[in-house]
Amino acid sequence: KMSSRKVVELFYDVVSPYSWLGFEIMCRYRNVWNIDLRLRPAFLGGIMQGSGNKPPGLVPNKFLYMTKDLNRLAQYFDVPLQAPSDPFEAMFQKGSLSAMRFVAAVQEREKDGDKQVEQLSRELWRRIWSQDKDITESASLSEAAVKAGLPASEIEELLKLSTSKQIKDKLKSTTQEALDHGAFGFPLVVCHVNGKAEMFFGSDRFELMAHCIGENWMGPQPGKSSAKL
Amino acid sequence: KMSSRKVVELFYDVVSPYSWLGFEIMCRYRNVWNIDLRLRPAFLGGIMQGSGNKPPGLVPNKFLYMTKDLNRLAQYFDVPLQAPSDPFEAMFQKGSLSAMRFVAAVQEREKDGDKQVEQLSRELWRRIWSQDKDITESASLSEAAVKAGLPASEIEELLKLSTSKQIKDKLKSTTQEALDHGAFGFPLVVCHVNGKAEMFFGSDRFELMAHCIGENWMGPQPGKSSAKL
Repeated sequence: KMSSRKVVELFYDVVSPYSWLGFEIMCRYRNVWNIDLRLRPAFLGGIMQGSGNKPPGLVPNKFLYMTKDLNRLAQYFDVPLQAPSDPFEAMFQKGSLSAMRFVAAVQEREKDGDKQVEQLSRELWRRIWSQDKDITESASLSEAAVKAGLPASEIEELLKLSTSKQIKDKLKSTTQEALDHGAFGFPLVVCHVNGKAEMFFGSDRFELMAHCIGENWMGPQPGKSSAKL
Repeated sequence: KMSSRKVVELFYDVVSPYSWLGFEIMCRYRNVWNIDLRLRPAFLGGIMQGSGNKPPGLVPNKFLYMTKDLNRLAQYFDVPLQAPSDPFEAMFQKGSLSAMRFVAAVQEREKDGDKQVEQLSRELWRRIWSQDKDITESASLSEAAVKAGLPASEIEELLKLSTSKQIKDKLKSTTQEALDHGAFGFPLVVCHVNGKAEMFFGSDRFELMAHCIGENWMGPQPGKSSAKL
């Protein structure tokens, strides 16, 4: 039974609101579909640079639509997403490099499953994309880690680890893997089916994804994880 | 009963492959949902210029993904879409201005329903996005019109009408209406719900759209229209 579980990788960055939607849906469906979900925290800035893509916010009608679209999807998906007061500053000036390095460090140390990575990612999204809070300072990362249930005694060391060459290289190589799969943005879901990697971009291909892995799409499912938020 | 039908407008251009997918789905669901579907043929070139949007084909990873995504969606939606040998020439050099003026002319003259507009649009898509055929020459438009079942005796006059100021203005004003709704690309679906216009871009928001108009999304439905193709 275990061997028939299809490996599904989710590449994401907490700076990306559509990634949050995709993340929550995939975390719900990991218990519904017969899949082995692998969380792949990566760096969106590196994806944009590596693919030559530009953020979509520069076309006014597109920006207005995205805001509306995000609100509607968040409500329908039951994810408490809310745009920060200055999305451009949050996304492009402050960014997520230190946050994603921290997630990578936590992943490096977490040995049994990925509960810590999942909870920490969610808490970081909650800060930037729900509460309009910083995710660049050490104190911010620390606060998110405590909320995510990480042992307070380990957080200092994880913060230190997150600035090491080892972790910088780890985040770089995960980002490069996503680029090699053809990424030009996040979230990116890679389904391994019959020895082939099927890549899905965005948070609007779940029905197609289900079809591709031989499962059923049954809508967004109750947001038990977000109910806690 | 009639008065409770929600008006749903579909703005599209036959140069756009995602519009074909959206068009076929909406044509199937007009018989499933309690909606009054209004076909709104418009000009994508004017939308790109008016909104300042750029075609997405300039980022290599994005172009590769779109090709793959279109093929997967076409198969799943049961629409016989196939990219032309030179999509850039077909979309950006040859374009769809004369074709969409012709559709607008046919719409201007069609008095009872929109069967002619529907069939003609489908035949034009079939030429450019399935058979790699021209849609710019009069002879091409004429051939599509015959296949769409328009009376041969009227086609010459419709072609003439399509170059008149009346029809040029009609296409311009429909395009402007889409821009006023916030368009930056096609397809664009505008659902009129409780006096509000809810706008959906692309061919991947049907589930959300159904939720918004109080209907159910039940997948792409059998492609009876495409079976004829």
